[in-house]
Amino acid sequence: MSAASQARRMRGPDELEIVAFERGGFTSYSACGIPYWLGRVVRDRDSLIARSPETFRRDYHIDVRLRHEVTAIDLDAATVTAWDAETGREVTEGFDLLMLGLGARPLRPQLPGADAAGILGVQTLGDALEVAAALERDPRRAVVVGGGYIGLEMAEALVRRGLEVTLVEQRAQPMSSLDEDMGALVADALREVGVVLYTGESVTGFETSDGAVRAVVTEQRTLTADVVVLGLGVRPNVALADSAGLPVGASGALVVDRRLATPAPGVWAAGDCAEKFHRVSRRPVAIALGTYANKEGRTAGINLGGGYASFPGVIGTAASKICDVEVARTGLTAAEARAAGFVPVAATVDSTTRASYFPGASPVKVKLVADAGTGHVLGAQIVGREGAAKRIDAVALAVWNEMDLGELINADLSYAPPFSPLWDPVLIAARKAAQEVTAAT
Amino acid sequence: MSAASQARRMRGPDELEIVAFERGGFTSYSACGIPYWLGRVVRDRDSLIARSPETFRRDYHIDVRLRHEVTAIDLDAATVTAWDAETGREVTEGFDLLMLGLGARPLRPQLPGADAAGILGVQTLGDALEVAAALERDPRRAVVVGGGYIGLEMAEALVRRGLEVTLVEQRAQPMSSLDEDMGALVADALREVGVVLYTGESVTGFETSDGAVRAVVTEQRTLTADVVVLGLGVRPNVALADSAGLPVGASGALVVDRRLATPAPGVWAAGDCAEKFHRVSRRPVAIALGTYANKEGRTAGINLGGGYASFPGVIGTAASKICDVEVARTGLTAAEARAAGFVPVAATVDSTTRASYFPGASPVKVKLVADAGTGHVLGAQIVGREGAAKRIDAVALAVWNEMDLGELINADLSYAPPFSPLWDPVLIAARKAAQEVTAAT
Repeated sequence: MSAASQARRMRGPDELEIVAFERGGFTSYSACGIPYWLGRVVRDRDSLIARSPETFRRDYHIDVRLRHEVTAIDLDAATVTAWDAETGREVTEGFDLLMLGLGARPLRPQLPGADAAGILGVQTLGDALEVAAALERDPRRAVVVGGGYIGLEMAEALVRRGLEVTLVEQRAQPMSSLDEDMGALVADALREVGVVLYTGESVTGFETSDGAVRAVVTEQRTLTADVVVLGLGVRPNVALADSAGLPVGASGALVVDRRLATPAPGVWAAGDCAEKFHRVSRRPVAIALGTYANKEGRTAGINLGGGYASFPGVIGTAASKICDVEVARTGLTAAEARAAGFVPVAATVDSTTRASYFPGASPVKVKLVADAGTGHVLGAQIVGREGAAKRIDAVALAVWNEMDLGELINADLSYAPPFSPLWDPVLIAARKAAQEVTAAT
Repeated sequence: MSAASQARRMRGPDELEIVAFERGGFTSYSACGIPYWLGRVVRDRDSLIARSPETFRRDYHIDVRLRHEVTAIDLDAATVTAWDAETGREVTEGFDLLMLGLGARPLRPQLPGADAAGILGVQTLGDALEVAAALERDPRRAVVVGGGYIGLEMAEALVRRGLEVTLVEQRAQPMSSLDEDMGALVADALREVGVVLYTGESVTGFETSDGAVRAVVTEQRTLTADVVVLGLGVRPNVALADSAGLPVGASGALVVDRRLATPAPGVWAAGDCAEKFHRVSRRPVAIALGTYANKEGRTAGINLGGGYASFPGVIGTAASKICDVEVARTGLTAAEARAAGFVPVAATVDSTTRASYFPGASPVKVKLVADAGTGHVLGAQIVGREGAAKRIDAVALAVWNEMDLGELINADLSYAPPFSPLWDPVLIAARKAAQEVTAAT
């Protein structure tokens, strides 16, 4: 819808007819807000919806067709076929330009019992309504499978709703998008609010009765569960495009150029289904984030509307709030840097969000990763309390601009006692990382 | 002391003898914290002191001589003469290397009555003790002269202490380091907490009786005052160095190179007394900020200790909290950009610190200034509530790295509902500024 509305801004309804097929019943909502709505931090479900189908129809003259699942794309015939869930009929539309915003599909474990009722995902607002309905039935025990952003945010939401919550994560620490030492801090925060955490433990199946889940079975134990929430991550939803003959890259997402054109003339792709260029690793990646989808939608929309725009790539910046702990990352972790062929050095510092003497100063830990050879800042991870996460943006632009540590140390970041120690935590980390580089060479 | 301790880290006491003359009675304290201590936001005065003279003597083997005012520098003889306020005697020390951290001197109005008791500055911790003593005498009415950072922070502090506070500012808006439209928001915040504000009004003198101030006289009115606080800004304190023959630049500060060496061999300068290179206007400037002084102290200290370090210049990033309003700036304002020869375009956007639906989302206004010709980001100003100010750091690194608007629009800043709308306010401002550039060309 981001691409559609941007294209509409470029070309009026007399110049460009826009039809949008949507499998679900909603348009333009904040998927990232779902755990907070389920946890009753956000009270009004409708506040998550940025623009309704009616708004798109009325104000943007976009022919939004809800509950239409596209089942086939024929590039030669330039048609799209969709199944209308309301009428049960198939409809076919021709196109001059096609924009694919296919999104991602959540991973479901291929395990015994995985299709039982009560095993729920939380990707779409439709999913969220199912979870909300399940929570109305006053379940006592919840198991969350997978400790990524969604899994952790849902664990917190379920605690807020008064459930006994257990989280099972295959890896040694939750939040595997952080290095393990930083992920351990998130694990501590979860335990503090009462989440029982089993890490380094794989789910092997589900016990069910009458088609409903009763327990999650892991290698070590059986966890009784009235409701199971899956947070195993997502994969680009490319099957339809793949069938149509569009190339899928090594990342698993659709191959696009910088303008977000696929190799098929007139066919564009944006969002979770489209491959992104990672500016640090210099490799194609598939990262499903709302900010990327929205920015890419704008870029594709400008191009669809006859303008010229390009998307410069990503550096993997992300943030989340788990209980009272703020988490953020950008660029590469030390582990990712090694995998990308760098020789990383890392420095971790403990500082505070305000001058140490200022009321409300709270701890913030910054881990900065740099390339031992060039001193370039490769990435950072931040874990802390109120006021910690958004500090990642300064490092993000340091990474984006390929700054080296020597330059970052003296960078002109803001200081005032209510906002920062005299030396910003990021700069302290840069100083320490520079020492590590010196020691390593 | 920053330079001294850094030099000590490079060279031990057997290699380098360090003597430090300090006019006042304290070392290494947070001058920026003074208004918050006087306003009783910070309770413990000693918490403002980072390192005591005893710490420097004992742990750093630095011969700190307090209450010693340096009265002469003889570069040919390589000596410094200081007046010891305790003994009333002059002492002379020779040097191989000289580091000048002369700081700045607060402006005092050259007006009738300006030397009366009760007219106080707040630059040093010594000054702060005088203000604290004056406040112990339960004054009812305070007038603050000058609406810069210190003046505004002091106005808030005096309100917190229960005084009736009037602020007089010569310019059309307080916070003249912001453009007037943004300064007006700060004025609103002051009025909200009860500060009476007279802008566009100059002080012409002071009424006194028995040597103590009784009223502040402006062009329009007479304001009864039990205590007057001066916040008229500072100038580099270069008289002593000037007398010694060291060159003073157009900015009024001492000329130094990138390593912070003055043209006199072995003589270094850092902090408020030293000229800085402004990376956007490409001009030498005198900006008195604790972060610069500290970073430059570190740079000079490395060089004094026989190492090699350079200071890359500044872009004028600063922040403050006035009542509940957070204020921040970086780079050039629109007015400064014009003065520096740019043709600036500016875009101001209203956004929120969190997703609009997220509890605690509060307003934030971002004004982004860019060069109409190149699209380069020249600066930004942010005014908002909790969580607004530190966002300036992202723009600071955009300015630092000479990013243009097209690049900034798609920059990978963090997003999660508790921290930001989907499009970060800075990016929304970049989008709007890009439209302004297009419209202007």
